[in-house]
Amino acid sequence: MAGKVFFSVSMSLDGYVAPEPVPVEDLFVPGKQDDPGVQRWMAQWMELQQWVFPLRFFRENLKLGEGGEEGRDNDIARETFERTGASVMGKRMFEGGALAWPEEAPFHTPVFVVTHEKRDPWERPGGTTFHFVNDGIETALDQARVAAGDRDVRIAGGGATILEYVNAGLVDEFSIALSPVLFGSGVRLFEGVDASRVALEPVRAEPTPRVTHLTYAVRER
Amino acid sequence: MAGKVFFSVSMSLDGYVAPEPVPVEDLFVPGKQDDPGVQRWMAQWMELQQWVFPLRFFRENLKLGEGGEEGRDNDIARETFERTGASVMGKRMFEGGALAWPEEAPFHTPVFVVTHEKRDPWERPGGTTFHFVNDGIETALDQARVAAGDRDVRIAGGGATILEYVNAGLVDEFSIALSPVLFGSGVRLFEGVDASRVALEPVRAEPTPRVTHLTYAVRER
Repeated sequence: MAGKVFFSVSMSLDGYVAPEPVPVEDLFVPGKQDDPGVQRWMAQWMELQQWVFPLRFFRENLKLGEGGEEGRDNDIARETFERTGASVMGKRMFEGGALAWPEEAPFHTPVFVVTHEKRDPWERPGGTTFHFVNDGIETALDQARVAAGDRDVRIAGGGATILEYVNAGLVDEFSIALSPVLFGSGVRLFEGVDASRVALEPVRAEPTPRVTHLTYAVRER
Repeated sequence: MAGKVFFSVSMSLDGYVAPEPVPVEDLFVPGKQDDPGVQRWMAQWMELQQWVFPLRFFRENLKLGEGGEEGRDNDIARETFERTGASVMGKRMFEGGALAWPEEAPFHTPVFVVTHEKRDPWERPGGTTFHFVNDGIETALDQARVAAGDRDVRIAGGGATILEYVNAGLVDEFSIALSPVLFGSGVRLFEGVDASRVALEPVRAEPTPRVTHLTYAVRER
């Protein structure tokens, strides 16, 4: 049986999944961290994702050391990881991640990067292999489905890539960790959504002290 | 003891509290209902508020007849009404409502309308009296606080008026009924929010089958 196609993101209450973009290199290259724009980006990102950082699963997976919190947030983060047999991501997310992830990248599965760059697969220790797909989102998804087998395919991000898949009718389900924060500006998840085509069906809603976990199935209108 | 200042709205998952505006008269004046823009407005509004219409409390309060659903959605709608000792609203909401509400307007308390129009108080059967305040949002709120006594003041709407109060630091708490719908365009609740000033603290989150009820306290950063 084929798996589902889903995405799972943290979103501010006003609908943002990332701060106003700054050059990817500025976020991770030493010497740029004092820039006020970079500091604002980092502060907003930390606030959006604040429910994730203390989790035992996150700390393990990012090689940040022992310990960390257990509980429902941790279970949900782990379940999201375990259901995922392959991921798809956009070029910008890959480029930022390549600078930020540890050598043992946190996917431990095949990852398909939608990009114009022609490049051989890039194998990382720990089971993550990045494949570079040059002929569009549908091909990337087809390859990810095959790689995932009966597990699910996660559209990992960023926001624009997720929305392309939603508007193409290719997403079955999604989860949002709604964070108690307002951004006022940044990258809106649903900016440009084809609302005449996409209907939502609530699947699950579960609040924890830090965040509200919401899951919806996507239906065609 | 003074009450709280709060608002309570239905919001789409992409952050809208109303469809793209159409002229207020077009929504309620016979003969305009066939206009495609008006039909789209109505369809989106109905979808956003779909959790409200079946409720027993809503049907009673709008004089739509006996019956209707009980349960948590109904309790929450009734609690929101019962805590409210006075309301504040913007001119556009008043003008639309004046065409839409029954003669026995659904507030049953004093309502303070922020407007440039000079007008004597307008008393309706059933306890609603509209007062027209010409010198700004703070004066309107001061008058509403006095009228509410130890009950709470509700900033009723619309979205722009709510945001003025939020940005002025005058809102203590708010509730959002997050509806499983995407608008893609319309009136965004938090468009223009002063994110550098407003911090949120989660108070309560309660999903029902139709909607997710979220309550936050507003804190200054």
